[in-house]
Amino acid sequence: MDHEDEEMDRGDIENRDSIIRHGDGDGDGEERGRDISFNSNSESNDDSLGQPLLSHKSRVNATSQIAIVGAKVCPIESLDYEIVENDLFKQDWRSRKKVQIYQYVFMKWTLVLLIGLATGLVGFFNNIAVENIAGFKLLHMTNLMLKNEYRLAFISFAGINLVLALCAASLCAFFAPAAAGSGIPEVKAYLNGVDAHSILAPSTLFVKIFGSIFGVSAGFVVGKEGPMVHTGACIANLLGQGGSRKYHMTWRWLRFFKNDRDRRDLITCGAAAGVAAAFRAPVGGVLFALEEAASWWRSALLWRAFFTNAVVAVVLRSLIQLCKSGKCGLFGEGGLIMFDVNSAEPSYNSTDLLAVMILGVLGGVLGSFYNFLVDKVLRTYSIVNEKGPAFKLLLVAIISILTSCCAYGLPWFANCTPCPIGLEDDCPTVGRSGNYKNFQCPPGHYNDLASLFLNTNDDAIRNLFSSRNSAEFHLSTLFVFFSAMYGLGIVTYGIAIPSGLFIPVILAGASYGRLIGTVLGSVSSLEVGYFALLGAASFLGGTMRMTVSLCVILLELTNDLLMLPLMMLVLLISKTVADSFNSGVYDQIVKMKGLPFLEAHAEPYMRNLTAGDVCSGPLITFSGVEKVSNIVHALKFTKHNGFPVIDEPPFTDAPELCGLVLRSHLLVFLKKKSFVKNQVLAGSQILRTFHAFEFAKPGSGKGLKLDDVEITDEEMDMYVDLHPISNASPYTVVETMSLAKAVVLFRQLGLRHLCVVPKKLGRPPIVGILTRHDFMPEHILGLYPHVESHNKFVNDDVVLCGNSSQKLKRGNSC
Amino acid sequence: MDHEDEEMDRGDIENRDSIIRHGDGDGDGEERGRDISFNSNSESNDDSLGQPLLSHKSRVNATSQIAIVGAKVCPIESLDYEIVENDLFKQDWRSRKKVQIYQYVFMKWTLVLLIGLATGLVGFFNNIAVENIAGFKLLHMTNLMLKNEYRLAFISFAGINLVLALCAASLCAFFAPAAAGSGIPEVKAYLNGVDAHSILAPSTLFVKIFGSIFGVSAGFVVGKEGPMVHTGACIANLLGQGGSRKYHMTWRWLRFFKNDRDRRDLITCGAAAGVAAAFRAPVGGVLFALEEAASWWRSALLWRAFFTNAVVAVVLRSLIQLCKSGKCGLFGEGGLIMFDVNSAEPSYNSTDLLAVMILGVLGGVLGSFYNFLVDKVLRTYSIVNEKGPAFKLLLVAIISILTSCCAYGLPWFANCTPCPIGLEDDCPTVGRSGNYKNFQCPPGHYNDLASLFLNTNDDAIRNLFSSRNSAEFHLSTLFVFFSAMYGLGIVTYGIAIPSGLFIPVILAGASYGRLIGTVLGSVSSLEVGYFALLGAASFLGGTMRMTVSLCVILLELTNDLLMLPLMMLVLLISKTVADSFNSGVYDQIVKMKGLPFLEAHAEPYMRNLTAGDVCSGPLITFSGVEKVSNIVHALKFTKHNGFPVIDEPPFTDAPELCGLVLRSHLLVFLKKKSFVKNQVLAGSQILRTFHAFEFAKPGSGKGLKLDDVEITDEEMDMYVDLHPISNASPYTVVETMSLAKAVVLFRQLGLRHLCVVPKKLGRPPIVGILTRHDFMPEHILGLYPHVESHNKFVNDDVVLCGNSSQKLKRGNSC
Repeated sequence: MDHEDEEMDRGDIENRDSIIRHGDGDGDGEERGRDISFNSNSESNDDSLGQPLLSHKSRVNATSQIAIVGAKVCPIESLDYEIVENDLFKQDWRSRKKVQIYQYVFMKWTLVLLIGLATGLVGFFNNIAVENIAGFKLLHMTNLMLKNEYRLAFISFAGINLVLALCAASLCAFFAPAAAGSGIPEVKAYLNGVDAHSILAPSTLFVKIFGSIFGVSAGFVVGKEGPMVHTGACIANLLGQGGSRKYHMTWRWLRFFKNDRDRRDLITCGAAAGVAAAFRAPVGGVLFALEEAASWWRSALLWRAFFTNAVVAVVLRSLIQLCKSGKCGLFGEGGLIMFDVNSAEPSYNSTDLLAVMILGVLGGVLGSFYNFLVDKVLRTYSIVNEKGPAFKLLLVAIISILTSCCAYGLPWFANCTPCPIGLEDDCPTVGRSGNYKNFQCPPGHYNDLASLFLNTNDDAIRNLFSSRNSAEFHLSTLFVFFSAMYGLGIVTYGIAIPSGLFIPVILAGASYGRLIGTVLGSVSSLEVGYFALLGAASFLGGTMRMTVSLCVILLELTNDLLMLPLMMLVLLISKTVADSFNSGVYDQIVKMKGLPFLEAHAEPYMRNLTAGDVCSGPLITFSGVEKVSNIVHALKFTKHNGFPVIDEPPFTDAPELCGLVLRSHLLVFLKKKSFVKNQVLAGSQILRTFHAFEFAKPGSGKGLKLDDVEITDEEMDMYVDLHPISNASPYTVVETMSLAKAVVLFRQLGLRHLCVVPKKLGRPPIVGILTRHDFMPEHILGLYPHVESHNKFVNDDVVLCGNSSQKLKRGNSC
Repeated sequence: MDHEDEEMDRGDIENRDSIIRHGDGDGDGEERGRDISFNSNSESNDDSLGQPLLSHKSRVNATSQIAIVGAKVCPIESLDYEIVENDLFKQDWRSRKKVQIYQYVFMKWTLVLLIGLATGLVGFFNNIAVENIAGFKLLHMTNLMLKNEYRLAFISFAGINLVLALCAASLCAFFAPAAAGSGIPEVKAYLNGVDAHSILAPSTLFVKIFGSIFGVSAGFVVGKEGPMVHTGACIANLLGQGGSRKYHMTWRWLRFFKNDRDRRDLITCGAAAGVAAAFRAPVGGVLFALEEAASWWRSALLWRAFFTNAVVAVVLRSLIQLCKSGKCGLFGEGGLIMFDVNSAEPSYNSTDLLAVMILGVLGGVLGSFYNFLVDKVLRTYSIVNEKGPAFKLLLVAIISILTSCCAYGLPWFANCTPCPIGLEDDCPTVGRSGNYKNFQCPPGHYNDLASLFLNTNDDAIRNLFSSRNSAEFHLSTLFVFFSAMYGLGIVTYGIAIPSGLFIPVILAGASYGRLIGTVLGSVSSLEVGYFALLGAASFLGGTMRMTVSLCVILLELTNDLLMLPLMMLVLLISKTVADSFNSGVYDQIVKMKGLPFLEAHAEPYMRNLTAGDVCSGPLITFSGVEKVSNIVHALKFTKHNGFPVIDEPPFTDAPELCGLVLRSHLLVFLKKKSFVKNQVLAGSQILRTFHAFEFAKPGSGKGLKLDDVEITDEEMDMYVDLHPISNASPYTVVETMSLAKAVVLFRQLGLRHLCVVPKKLGRPPIVGILTRHDFMPEHILGLYPHVESHNKFVNDDVVLCGNSSQKLKRGNSC
């Protein structure tokens, strides 16, 4: 619904501190971004001259900014989590009544409740749609095969797959390109403070829901879990937008949530709800949000996420109860995943422990290799995808046909197996699901490979986890299936459809685990179903690198707490092994997409640098009472988002840092034209005319633009008192502060701007501003290429404190 | 083993920033602490005179310090989590080889492994001891009763209980008073950055283990869960001490862990392992540490805690396997708690949902009332306990006899019930455990109240959770048992034995839930065992106020994932209801004990104040190259732990803040006597003679004292270069920074000292230091009693930024 104005805003919200070309795999995007910042960097403030910083206002490097706007960049915006404690905020906060605070708390819980309800409903809808579409497809094919119409069966199977795949791909390619892929890396980046363009837009939500249904139904080796996380986050963002002014869908009370802080909380709950809805794992969902998605966490948030997931669990359970009466078409028991591994208590001996350890090591190796290959394939695909929607569709079509060929073709090479004695009723299966597919086999026989390939992914996993008949799958079958899933999983991720990574990894892991279990059948007392489960765990640990959340998710999936110690063991081993090769798959994708993700810890080489070393200029500052034309000029020719405000004589004895003013606040201020003729304080008057809510931050890409503000020449010569909107308490570091400590401050407090103040007296009151970009390893290592290896100093160099990094300086720091 | 030197150090480690009288319930402890700081506060620095701060050195208020030392105070020490980035650290860090980093990582994992192993073993030992002692006691009594020796049975029962109780109490009263109570509040405070004296000492560990065994065996209504958490933390602290120099038990590699940062991580893992060992709930343990215990959390720590708990799980499982062959005496299946509620799938309808909600509301009300009463009782007991060990023992004896009377006396009022048909084999029970105690009843009958009272607590819970015979317990029985548990739980916590709160709360909650379930028997389709489980959950939620961790712990205890949605619902409701009355029981105890716990969020009134408003003086600063006598004087007559170091002419053009030096580092420095005759820089020489490890922080109460350093009169006139040991990157805030933002910075980064720098130029480079104490509500509200109500300002007052709180000032801020 808000889709159109989303589209219109594109390209307008770049900002200096975060413009990095949206990589999409082509390496040089980051390069160019860095070049630009280096250009502006060489124009840095020459503080050693001791002149007031205000004079720098005229030295804005306009060309480099135009170069950015000219290039085809995909904007990334940093988020404002800091509470802007300006006078307006204080006035509003002091006048806030107790009832408003209760209202706020009540609304927050209501929003969270709505997120839970909506995500639960979408998750259920997704499941029912997939089960019905895929079920119809498979039934149709089986019927044709029963009539010995093998060729027609293949054509219809592959044809339906192709049509569904192209539907999903068209949605992605034409409506919302941001909806392709898993979505977890983008949500993770958002929760770290980076808003990639339209990643949580309503159009993305729409495409994510339907694209995922079509994609999964099309038989791709993709899951619905990643997309569900993204969907949950989109729903939360939509609800947290404060409605849509365009469609007159705003409520007064929603204005409380028009800030990035509350939005972050809601989106965290949304991501948790997504996992809960996808896996029916409410506790696992909370832990997933905690361990993988969120960068900041409070116990209040834990509680709220827990509540959201309780709502999801209740919604899903009620709807499943409804479906038990058979009103949901082909949606049966198997719909929402809940794999019953076995009802008996697992028993294992020390040999099994050894086997499990080997499983963990292999899982780690295979998992990290999977990540490596996914990365390579993604980089290749992004070249193809960049060429246009037609190429995206072509790629999807190729992979769809390849998948159909594998699924239909490979079972022909499998031998027919006689049905096990005592299972004559279940074997061969007539309906669409079940373990024993007849395929081309004579009556009384089944094709075990077809039972895996020609099923929904959920059913295939269920078959692999089942221990009822340990000899059900041949070794060769498991090997072929494992290879196919491993390969198809890798080549499928990255095509233009919403695609989750969980299910492919579980499929490959479960088949590999069952393979090992079958090999060890004679020496092991652990059942093959458990081996499949542990294989899936080891593979998940090797790719995703989560521990507690994966463990709980798998336990909730299989409803078997007794496997806990083994599961923990295998996850720990596989994660440890895989971590020694590369990083987790989501981290890799975040990095590849060029999203400036801020790690929680400082890199070792940062201890060799100071805050002053890396902050890049030029710095634009304003006077406490500033000329309108200066402000407009600065807003026009820079993309800075924060401007320090300096109080100067005659208002104070000496120049001093008064605060930090945000671009968005300046625009609101200019729009309302609270100008005065002379350079005088007008704070109290301004406080009466404005209300803090006018400065509330709308959702991404919806704020005021400079073009929306029209200012006459006469007004240009007037003055504006910036005190009421200056954040009087910006966080500051001294320029000699170790960069490692500055980055911890920046990251822990979720800042967007960090003011760097001088150490020595008699200098301007601020020497620079650090933003997210300045902490990126690429930026720092670009400035100081040798700092990483510069780990040894002659002792005599480090005598006076704070000077130790002097010799590394390039000389152009702020 | 290190027990003795722990004892010797007592009373020596007070420090200015954290001296608060160990409240133990008597309100005025805090008062006195505040008075002291007010005294010193009135001696504050008169910055408006503009004179260098060095001149304040001579103005130390010696009398007030002596008053502190003279009073009977229980020292609390803040912990140093900040990395001290001084030149020595940098030198060491730069010279550190890669292999040392691997060694460090390897050692950390090894330590964590050892913590898991040790905690698992202790947990198992605890269980086996309790089961055997309590089992013998109960068997002996039953045998006497079978011989109709009722009076003798009571005497033997009460006598054994009393002896065991007195054993536990003597250990607590004479060896380690810190071991009394749950221990969770103290561990929570430690992880927040407050080290209460000897709370993690080896003596405490010893008493905690054996005291808990005796206490639980004595039939008290206490659990072993809180003590296990404390035990795990003690074990972690012991392993993280870096060995004992006294007993020559140091290893070279352990020196890496001689800092509060690593110790904090280890103790978090230890606390998690404690829960895992107590409940056999490894995932729940991790979540408990995350949600309740820890104040700072990183994903690396999550992983490490997960590993620890995996080790605990494996250890417990292997040992239980060993016991299956019957080598563990009376330790049977029932030993480590694992309650099997039911094997059938729970079914519930909308009536049940309503019932569950009522259960949640009632649980919240009862839980918060429980907290209220516990608080009152604790305050009363602490008056008794303060009178001396004899009074402690007396109190324990009274409660022991009361408990024995209840357990043996109340079942006489219950009616005998005929054994249910079909259960003739199990009823009445002959052995020590089981549902159907014969007690005084004729053959073929059982006494249902005796089945609850005359069992171990674990078995009583198991009986309540069991749904096998829903008519097993009469309504009156459940009511009597609930009342007894509620009352005894309240009066037992606070006596001088290690006592956990989980089990009493679960016992009361389960009986109350089963009571409700029995009442609703006809209209509800949910079984009574589930009602008992939900009742326990609601009660736990109402007292402890945890959500996710309680949910997972209960699921792991009962091995029944299908109850998840209902459990979440009931926990949410009870927590919400209870939160509207008072705070969680652990928070209450932390507050009552006077531990300066720092909350994660800022209080609203803090927005009305600035950092400069609250920092209390007098401030003692040192020159970059300082005279020895000045340092010794400052160390002797103040209890400050951090001293700002100011570089002055001729070393610099104008005075500037060079860094912050710690008391402990100064003592090491003085001890080695690296003095120079004149005021010259001697950094490079010092760097050659010192090694960073000499400054490593030993475990609590083990550092150097000023008395250990002997300095001649001649040396007193020499100089010492403080640059190499000054932390050159202390975190700073401007004095006009909003206090709300300063506290967030302080808390998020886990600081001990926060430097307040002036806003205006031409003033001394530092105006004060904020410590934990300065952020305590008592301190702030003592300075500005009206700030809480001062929520309204005339708009005109807030014109220039940063000045808004001016009018609130008392005038004596730094």
